Amino acid sequence: MSSVTASNPATSCRIGLGYDIHKTGPGDHVWLGGVKIDAAFSLVGHSDADVLLHAVTDAILGALGDADIGHYFPPSDEQNRHRKSSDFVRFAAERMQSAGYKIGNVDCNVICELPRIAPVREVVRESLADLLGASKSQVSVKGRTNEKQDAVGEGRAVVCQAIVLLVPAT
Amino acid sequence: MSSVTASNPATSCRIGLGYDIHKTGPGDHVWLGGVKIDAAFSLVGHSDADVLLHAVTDAILGALGDADIGHYFPPSDEQNRHRKSSDFVRFAAERMQSAGYKIGNVDCNVICELPRIAPVREVVRESLADLLGASKSQVSVKGRTNEKQDAVGEGRAVVCQAIVLLVPAT
Amino acid sequence: MSSVTASNPATSCRIGLGYDIHKTGPGDHVWLGGVKIDAAFSLVGHSDADVLLHAVTDAILGALGDADIGHYFPPSDEQNRHRKSSDFVRFAAERMQSAGYKIGNVDCNVICELPRIAPVREVVRESLADLLGASKSQVSVKGRTNEKQDAVGEGRAVVCQAIVLLVPAT
Repeated sequence: MSSVTASNPATSCRIGLGYDIHKTGPGDHVWLGGVKIDAAFSLVGHSDADVLLHAVTDAILGALGDADIGHYFPPSDEQNRHRKSSDFVRFAAERMQSAGYKIGNVDCNVICELPRIAPVREVVRESLADLLGASKSQVSVKGRTNEKQDAVGEGRAVVCQAIVLLVPAT
Repeated sequence: MSSVTASNPATSCRIGLGYDIHKTGPGDHVWLGGVKIDAAFSLVGHSDADVLLHAVTDAILGALGDADIGHYFPPSDEQNRHRKSSDFVRFAAERMQSAGYKIGNVDCNVICELPRIAPVREVVRESLADLLGASKSQVSVKGRTNEKQDAVGEGRAVVCQAIVLLVPAT
Repeated sequence: MSSVTASNPATSCRIGLGYDIHKTGPGDHVWLGGVKIDAAFSLVGHSDADVLLHAVTDAILGALGDADIGHYFPPSDEQNRHRKSSDFVRFAAERMQSAGYKIGNVDCNVICELPRIAPVREVVRESLADLLGASKSQVSVKGRTNEKQDAVGEGRAVVCQAIVLLVPAT
């Protein structure tokens, strides 16, 4: 076992960086941070394609020295088809707790032309904080267009970047 | 109020991640970290399009659990047209101080084919450190081309990524 | 000298963010974290084009308030042609130690359609940990495709993002 564990208690902070991208496709909503949001398209993926939860999950796993989300939830596994991404982030949060850590803070950048993040920011923050067992003040969700450049700017994909700081739980 | 505040004094570190992109357009200079730099183009934006200060501002706001730069300085507000981005970063630095934090360190990647970062690195670092009330040793400005790939590599845009570590002020 | 130094001992943590991109070209292997990996292409660069070691090197240098990898190892210098990137990351690790820091943890995202990261993750982590003088549990290497979007998704380039947390060595 090469990751941090409860038997090897956490004594210092850890940081992680998550990146996720999903293509857009036909549909009328996207999932973002566990929240269903009206949109003129959907995001394509094996699970619910929640780009924000995937990036946050990967950031936590990375901070712990674990493998990536695809290692624990392979797309080839039929059990993961249409799976809710809240399962993924809860899995990462449980590993975090077992390793003796808690969330210091989380900061996310959702990069897309649409949907607009401002109108949904507070509900997405609340949802994400709940899923992580953190307070809303520890979670930031920022939005940014890609100025019509490349796949994101042309509306063909949505990207999320997430950074997490984990601190010893005690 | 869901952000950290002085009445809820800072007891642990915070981290934030900023991302900004601006398209290139006709012109003869760009603003970078509050410094006017000769270039064969300009960066297009409602403000002075200082891609580095926008990324740093957003990283600080994200670390604090605040909203993004567009929330506090909407492009739809005529007051923000041609506004100096030093106003934005000073605003974020004031919120940081009110919340009981100071800069631990800041690291920035400017991704562009041109201008070259090496010749302006030291003056940009000094300017950014001054705006943040930090020392130059706490600020890094790195440059990277995008190897001629995508919008940045084709000279159609400039990207900046910034990461900040905030530490309790006392 | 504007960077942190041993005469100005480290008292708090530092974070850094690295980004690197290399184009693909004809060949049959790539270097990743100091490990030679079979591939149907190579990565193009002056050195061995180890995109992961370059991103990690830049993240450490950025955390220290130093300049970027191109400053210390300019491509224009013939000595750097075909140079092993392990030299770069060892250089950064030595500067880190001289400044009174050690690795807290490192998290990397390799973004590419191929090669697949899962089969090489453990050997790459071990190699990177060795080069940094860290334990494997302090190093994470995650993989992600770019969903066939843009240069990375079209197999024309490979990107690596890296984040590092440095902690006082004593």
